[in-house]
Amino acid sequence: MNEDERAIRELVDKWMEASRAGDTAAVLELMTDDVLFHVTGREPFGKEEFRATSEAMRDFKVDGRAAIREIEVIGDTAWIRNHIDLTVTPPGGKPMRRSGYTLTILKKADDGCWRLFRDANLVS
Amino acid sequence: MNEDERAIRELVDKWMEASRAGDTAAVLELMTDDVLFHVTGREPFGKEEFRATSEAMRDFKVDGRAAIREIEVIGDTAWIRNHIDLTVTPPGGKPMRRSGYTLTILKKADDGCWRLFRDANLVS
Repeated sequence: MNEDERAIRELVDKWMEASRAGDTAAVLELMTDDVLFHVTGREPFGKEEFRATSEAMRDFKVDGRAAIREIEVIGDTAWIRNHIDLTVTPPGGKPMRRSGYTLTILKKADDGCWRLFRDANLVS
Repeated sequence: MNEDERAIRELVDKWMEASRAGDTAAVLELMTDDVLFHVTGREPFGKEEFRATSEAMRDFKVDGRAAIREIEVIGDTAWIRNHIDLTVTPPGGKPMRRSGYTLTILKKADDGCWRLFRDANLVS
């Protein structure tokens, strides 16, 4: 495993940890400013909408695990294929289990850090 | 637009034309042998399962349009973000309209041809 691959695996770990901790600011650090997220049934959305959605879900407990199934680094671009297992618990409610795949394009910036750039999320 | 970008746009056009024509063999030519398709609610599937599904839907009329929103070529790898509009008409049934985005990784083979390699399909 080379340095970039290791950095990307750490990024995914950090993402899941920060999500579990409800640390939206830390999650936002892991995406580019012009990131685009794609989920079923709505238009792609960016960083500000991600922030707003995360803050609206502040009282939900999110416990997620990501297993990287594939990773390829080509210069300052990479793509990964992840399998995600999520348990989302609304305040006072029952845990809801979600699972599925994501396909993600990442970019390495001038600061040497990898960040999410385009994401297609099929977790359902 | 460079030659690779043009070839990828032609690939997307060919895919939609062959789908409209119900020409499964032509569509299969446009993907690698180890392609993986990702849709919501099922495990990723490959070329043989794509062929079986297409053949099972032989009598469905499929009319689709793809609009490439983004394309990036890095050596022999590329990714595209597409918006798809589909009308699927079952035999004797009413047309069903579907739309959404795809995020796709493509590979250029030794024969100089680009083919689909990984696909996440959020059309719903």
